[in-house]
Amino acid sequence: MSAFPEQLRRFQHRVEHALDACLPAAAQAPARLHEAMRYVTLNGGKRVRASLVYAAGQAVGAPDAALDVPACAVELIHAYSLVHDDLPCMDDDDLRRGKPTCHKAYDEATALLAGDALQSLAFEILARDPALTIGPARRLHMIMLLAGAAGSHGMAGGQAIDLASGGKTLTLAQLEDMHLRKTGALIRASVLLGAHAREDVAAEKLAALENYSHAIGLAFQITDDILDVEGKAEMLGKNPGMDRARGKSTYPQVLGLAEAKARAQVLQTQALESLAPLEDNGRVLARLAGFIIERRQ
Amino acid sequence: MSAFPEQLRRFQHRVEHALDACLPAAAQAPARLHEAMRYVTLNGGKRVRASLVYAAGQAVGAPDAALDVPACAVELIHAYSLVHDDLPCMDDDDLRRGKPTCHKAYDEATALLAGDALQSLAFEILARDPALTIGPARRLHMIMLLAGAAGSHGMAGGQAIDLASGGKTLTLAQLEDMHLRKTGALIRASVLLGAHAREDVAAEKLAALENYSHAIGLAFQITDDILDVEGKAEMLGKNPGMDRARGKSTYPQVLGLAEAKARAQVLQTQALESLAPLEDNGRVLARLAGFIIERRQ
Repeated sequence: MSAFPEQLRRFQHRVEHALDACLPAAAQAPARLHEAMRYVTLNGGKRVRASLVYAAGQAVGAPDAALDVPACAVELIHAYSLVHDDLPCMDDDDLRRGKPTCHKAYDEATALLAGDALQSLAFEILARDPALTIGPARRLHMIMLLAGAAGSHGMAGGQAIDLASGGKTLTLAQLEDMHLRKTGALIRASVLLGAHAREDVAAEKLAALENYSHAIGLAFQITDDILDVEGKAEMLGKNPGMDRARGKSTYPQVLGLAEAKARAQVLQTQALESLAPLEDNGRVLARLAGFIIERRQ
Repeated sequence: MSAFPEQLRRFQHRVEHALDACLPAAAQAPARLHEAMRYVTLNGGKRVRASLVYAAGQAVGAPDAALDVPACAVELIHAYSLVHDDLPCMDDDDLRRGKPTCHKAYDEATALLAGDALQSLAFEILARDPALTIGPARRLHMIMLLAGAAGSHGMAGGQAIDLASGGKTLTLAQLEDMHLRKTGALIRASVLLGAHAREDVAAEKLAALENYSHAIGLAFQITDDILDVEGKAEMLGKNPGMDRARGKSTYPQVLGLAEAKARAQVLQTQALESLAPLEDNGRVLARLAGFIIERRQ
């Protein structure tokens, strides 16, 4: 088995290639919109969500050919959410991964439409792409999971709760509820899309992956909050300390920094323990859990 | 057969009821987001798109039970597009159907997220809703059609072209290309979703409905442009004359008012002629074409 960073680079490379193929060419009309869609999607992200699709799929023995399309779909939804989240009426961010955000590089209307069109494209490729070598019932299940994760009970709902919480101090339960929607729902969907790329996965394994995704979804957000306190701008590609500046509740603020780190460790342990039913096939997911919690950006 | 206005009211009533059932309850968290989603969707719209789903479905003999979900899905996509289109970075409209637009009644961030979540919900109900009594392959086909119509080659792409055209005078061909995307794509998808609610529709009938949808899609937009010149604010529920004020190219501006009206008439005739293969089953679609072109709001 190759070293984990190399494995991760392979996932990243694989999804970059697949995204490049599924996004409309920049020369196609309307060119400015298509350019913007490519600008925000093909931007060297960490591809945590795509990697979860691949790793969960491989853990249940799904063929790689069945994983490229769902991996693209979760990254398209993630990219759309970042573009809209950066808009002036939301977080009003100028920088994303060290580059101007979409509305800075283009304009607000183009950023709005690029996000909208990326969302449509995620569902279109799951419904249409011939590269996805699974039957209609599997595809539909993936669309259902992804749409539920993106919508008002998932990511968009989490954003709405986040907005409503500005300046308030949340309880730990409220903070976790918000993050299970805002970040956790799409992390969970990424794992489950991978798991559902194969027809006949045992219920015990699906439950294991569900538990794993729950734990890493929260751990991912805690790490994000910790990085906002401890991270450096040049590593993050954005300015740290913004959560506090915006009056947002964070894990370090609610729990204290040491306790937040301890909570991330507990969740990492939970994630690893949930993988037991997958035996040796869960090892890449285990390494991914480590990466998510120990990352520095 | 009952009078057409009564038929149209039945479609409207039917989709209002189905939308009310498929939208999350306003009391469910996040309540403000769910309230906003209901505010913009259950607002007494004309329901032209839902009516096209029902009428096209009935024309090919699809059961009504297979039509409620696609009718809701097209109305949800339409509602999301209006909310985003009204935002300050797009058309910056304060009034929609005589009521404050979403970002005026709530706030910009809520309007952005409500639009985003309505788009997710459209695909979620097509993938999940048990009320849709058709198999997975039909559902997938509907999702593919709707996502394509909503995305960068359809509605969102049309909006982007519209933005890029501000202040320029378009040729008739450019204007038609823009409107086939911006308005035509979703009108076409509405007709086709209805037509695909039944398994074994003859290719000749599908082609007839495709031609019909092309003609009424353009006619709808020409009528919109004419109403922007001739309509009265209290009928439209918005201020007329805004297209010109925004430097937008319109049919009356490119063709002259009389010629624009003549073009709408030609398209109505084309729409009616395309329905020939449906024989008597096309009569409600024929009445709808008349309604679309002769409406006063």
